[in-house]
Amino acid sequence: MTKKIILLGATGSIGVQTADIIREHHTEFQLVGFSAGKNIRLTKEMVQEFHPEIVCVQNEEDAAALRAEFPAVSFVSGSKGLIEAATYDADILVNAVIGSVGLEPTLEAIKLGRTIAIANKETLVTAGHLVMESAKRYGAMILPVDSEHSALFQALNGEKLEQASRLILTASGGSFRDLARSELENVTVKEALDHPNWSMGAKITIDSATMVNKGLEVIEAHVLFGFGYDDIDVLLHRESIIHSMVEFQDTSVMAQLGTPDMRVPIQYALTYPDRLPRPNAKRLNLAEIGKLHFQDMDYERFHALKLAFDAGRTGGTMTTIFNAANEQAVAMFLAGEIKFLHIEEMIERAMQSHDTVQSPDLETILHADAQTRKSVKNMLK
Amino acid sequence: MTKKIILLGATGSIGVQTADIIREHHTEFQLVGFSAGKNIRLTKEMVQEFHPEIVCVQNEEDAAALRAEFPAVSFVSGSKGLIEAATYDADILVNAVIGSVGLEPTLEAIKLGRTIAIANKETLVTAGHLVMESAKRYGAMILPVDSEHSALFQALNGEKLEQASRLILTASGGSFRDLARSELENVTVKEALDHPNWSMGAKITIDSATMVNKGLEVIEAHVLFGFGYDDIDVLLHRESIIHSMVEFQDTSVMAQLGTPDMRVPIQYALTYPDRLPRPNAKRLNLAEIGKLHFQDMDYERFHALKLAFDAGRTGGTMTTIFNAANEQAVAMFLAGEIKFLHIEEMIERAMQSHDTVQSPDLETILHADAQTRKSVKNMLK
Repeated sequence: MTKKIILLGATGSIGVQTADIIREHHTEFQLVGFSAGKNIRLTKEMVQEFHPEIVCVQNEEDAAALRAEFPAVSFVSGSKGLIEAATYDADILVNAVIGSVGLEPTLEAIKLGRTIAIANKETLVTAGHLVMESAKRYGAMILPVDSEHSALFQALNGEKLEQASRLILTASGGSFRDLARSELENVTVKEALDHPNWSMGAKITIDSATMVNKGLEVIEAHVLFGFGYDDIDVLLHRESIIHSMVEFQDTSVMAQLGTPDMRVPIQYALTYPDRLPRPNAKRLNLAEIGKLHFQDMDYERFHALKLAFDAGRTGGTMTTIFNAANEQAVAMFLAGEIKFLHIEEMIERAMQSHDTVQSPDLETILHADAQTRKSVKNMLK
Repeated sequence: MTKKIILLGATGSIGVQTADIIREHHTEFQLVGFSAGKNIRLTKEMVQEFHPEIVCVQNEEDAAALRAEFPAVSFVSGSKGLIEAATYDADILVNAVIGSVGLEPTLEAIKLGRTIAIANKETLVTAGHLVMESAKRYGAMILPVDSEHSALFQALNGEKLEQASRLILTASGGSFRDLARSELENVTVKEALDHPNWSMGAKITIDSATMVNKGLEVIEAHVLFGFGYDDIDVLLHRESIIHSMVEFQDTSVMAQLGTPDMRVPIQYALTYPDRLPRPNAKRLNLAEIGKLHFQDMDYERFHALKLAFDAGRTGGTMTTIFNAANEQAVAMFLAGEIKFLHIEEMIERAMQSHDTVQSPDLETILHADAQTRKSVKNMLK
């Protein structure tokens, strides 16, 4: 039976690769709707190729023009439109938007009991307790798309969660893993965007270089699998071949390995609990790779990762502050307004000046998020 | 609920470690019976510690003496006694005897629908088709104990077998992995017994050095998981940390890792589908290990592994010939009667002179086995 897919963030890196999977397995999946921000050229191409029933774009003017061109498709716009698309009838909602804009649409789809394939880690980081509580109440399944969490999810497959003792997230180290802390002072945007293993969007590539991305993943792992922060380790593994591991109480460690290709975890989220072939994909050849390297994480060198653990242990709104401060700081770095090391400085300052609210509701989260962005913006003045 | 265990081969390396697990988890497991060959001192110690109901020893005289000393225990002897012990009322039969003597008792226990934890690879190698057909007919579960097959079994946990595309067995390379073929000419028994990673019995340590052990494991993997020989790879991995892997059709590879400790897979077979803690065991620390190495297998250097694939592809009685010729040759090597490289020479000669019988019955297998041992013995003359 064909699975109906709604894809939020269709024109981003994960979105485009999700479309690849749907294209490769067009008898298995049907793209019934998507959201596309401001990339109208790609939106039109996707409408022509996939014949969706509903499409959300950012601006109402774009939606109006598209309605005139494709009268058979329902075009919606803005954050209200995003919720409309997210809750449109389907089997799986793939949330691949960037940033905390993905939060409300996801919560609304969860209320309908939808299966959520979540690539938007900010949703789990800022409102993990709301998402997981709601998913439990409405019987919605949350499937990770991130390669690390997909690896953990696969390693836990067929196992009892309470018999697992430790999550081990691997980290490539990002663009600057071979630089000492002192050498990070004057790195450029261009250098930061040159990730050694993965081809990803700009924001996440910067997050890899600062190790904020791994920090968000640690918090996400805590939310998704319910492990305490003392039972989540990060291991430096340059090759990104072991995508993550789970240690069980009998000392066995289960790992998921593969070439660095996001389409594998994306496809797994769409096919779970089954696996479909990926006939044209590169297969893992460990003999060709020869060696896999592992190193303990240096939390002084990667200070932002330490901040993430701090934010996670504090809990409540603090993880929202960590994420929002980072989003704002990265935007400023990409715009050339601040230096690379300012990103973690700004996160730390935002965290230090925040009074944590425990078990925050959605309004409190969104307010803390907005306040943090504003205050980080103002740090420049 | 306490699981009742029968342990065949209690005084061997796997047997002693199985007893360790039962001792560590004495509220979970009860050793209701075991077989012990000729080691009467250890037999007595185990009787005093575990209070079994039935014990099998090799010789009737030993049995008689033990009956006098422990009147509450039922002592049996010989191959008839081994079957009696194997079929004694229990939840799990652990078959940890060495060589093809484990075959008949296992088949009899399968007829009773018993769960079989199998460390005795010769049973699967010589009569795999009989064992698996019978297990299917009588609803008996076959659980691997070998670290490699346990790893494959764990990697397949929660997955659909038909969605797995390839089994990847790892091989440490054994005692002589760093020697060229020409350097193997005059290696000694003592050198061959010095395995780099695993502490095991003498026969299996020699089999590791010749790579016959890996060959037997390839055949065993074919039998246990139903993969064709083209879909079973062997990968040289010096550190024995990744115990084996399964590649799935989506290119994902699932692996089981751990320190080289046979008690982990032994315990898993006893606790499956659960995992119990191993509080005193060494946990895996990949950062401490630093690097894992992988290399393609050299089938000229490790000629016996090529012979195993040949025997497996030929099928029928040929795998029995491979195993029996090896058992006889290893005994002769350990007795100082032949040189190390003669082992694989003798296996190859035995295979060349054998006319394969397809789908052999038990009688045919046992006859081929006996004939092969005799002819290998005679090769010296």
